Amino acid sequence: MVINAMERIIKDLLDEYKNRLYLHCTCDECLDDILALTLNKTLPRYVTKEENITYIKANFVDKQELTSLLVKLAECAKIVSNRPICHNT
Amino acid sequence: MVINAMERIIKDLLDEYKNRLYLHCTCDECLDDILALTLNKTLPRYVTKEENITYIKANFVDKQELTSLLVKLAECAKIVSNRPICHNT
Repeated sequence: MVINAMERIIKDLLDEYKNRLYLHCTCDECLDDILALTLNKTLPRYVTKEENITYIKANFVDKQELTSLLVKLAECAKIVSNRPICHNT
Repeated sequence: MVINAMERIIKDLLDEYKNRLYLHCTCDECLDDILALTLNKTLPRYVTKEENITYIKANFVDKQELTSLLVKLAECAKIVSNRPICHNT
């Protein structure tokens, strides 16, 4: 098993802030789009053990990095909001 | 659902070449280590639909990129082989 710790970290961030990102649509398709777009702009941090994800979150993702992740997330949210591929809007 | 197409592409490459990479150990732990290390050195290509993985593989990963992925995989295989964290060797 390999997992990109950033997938979990950015997904948690999106869940936490999705109601403050001025999204036109919060359907699963749009949220997945935002997540994929953000992850494609973020250096991966793959781990081979589940417990290492918490370790990565606690040690490698400091306040400043979380803030820059949030900025990146907001930018990607805007891109997807302006050109949603879902059919809800 | 989001998935990094490179996870599937590099895993397939590792499965195909693992018997030609002079690995001291081919246990799951070592193979996961090699996969994680290689993925951490590779730009992610997240997609939101399973079928897009085949599309990525066919369109974005040309012969030259596959060769450079294989070189990267061989380098990471060497790193893990020289310092295995599994207890089999």
